[in-house]
Amino acid sequence: MNLESLLARVSEHWAPKKIAELNDYDVKIVKVLGDFTWHRHADTDELFLVIDGRLTIQLRGGVVSLGSGELFVVPRGAEHCPRADVETAVLLIEPRGVINTGDAGGDLTAHIETLP
Amino acid sequence: MNLESLLARVSEHWAPKKIAELNDYDVKIVKVLGDFTWHRHADTDELFLVIDGRLTIQLRGGVVSLGSGELFVVPRGAEHCPRADVETAVLLIEPRGVINTGDAGGDLTAHIETLP
Repeated sequence: MNLESLLARVSEHWAPKKIAELNDYDVKIVKVLGDFTWHRHADTDELFLVIDGRLTIQLRGGVVSLGSGELFVVPRGAEHCPRADVETAVLLIEPRGVINTGDAGGDLTAHIETLP
Repeated sequence: MNLESLLARVSEHWAPKKIAELNDYDVKIVKVLGDFTWHRHADTDELFLVIDGRLTIQLRGGVVSLGSGELFVVPRGAEHCPRADVETAVLLIEPRGVINTGDAGGDLTAHIETLP
């Protein structure tokens, strides 16, 4: 399972695609650009690993900036708002069924498709 | 958390270092070279993502070869034996407390240290 090949098949932004399962967790890839929405996941941490580009994760207490090969786990309950100034590819790992917009909802809420 | 910088601090082979937590899962990095040992994890899947090098995961039904940026989830219960012909850096994600040698035990069984 080659991340670069899988990412080449993704064009939409902020639309995670499931690529693998790890017990009851999903492994997803997503391309992002611009601002997401402030939200929190009350019940789970969320792992971000940047594959290509640069991801800024705004938190209420500061900002985390991740380049390629850098990872960060947003702790459960922590309000956060991802942002990318250039198109950025990210690997996400979190329990199955987590809603991408958490408690915020709205237009960016994604139905998670699986890449075959 | 930069994977390359963290890996630069690892010299031992087959000695995973914990670098982050994701709920009750541990995120680990490991450098590998040569053959590991055949084993299985009866209760959990195990995620391998190659950061640098090439990892061969021998399975009873075949072989998976992973280069940089390639990932594979070994299903729970599947006997496997990782091997690397060149020094290879891998990201591992699995539930906290999983023993690296699974049911096999032996000299390669590692106590998992945390990289501060």
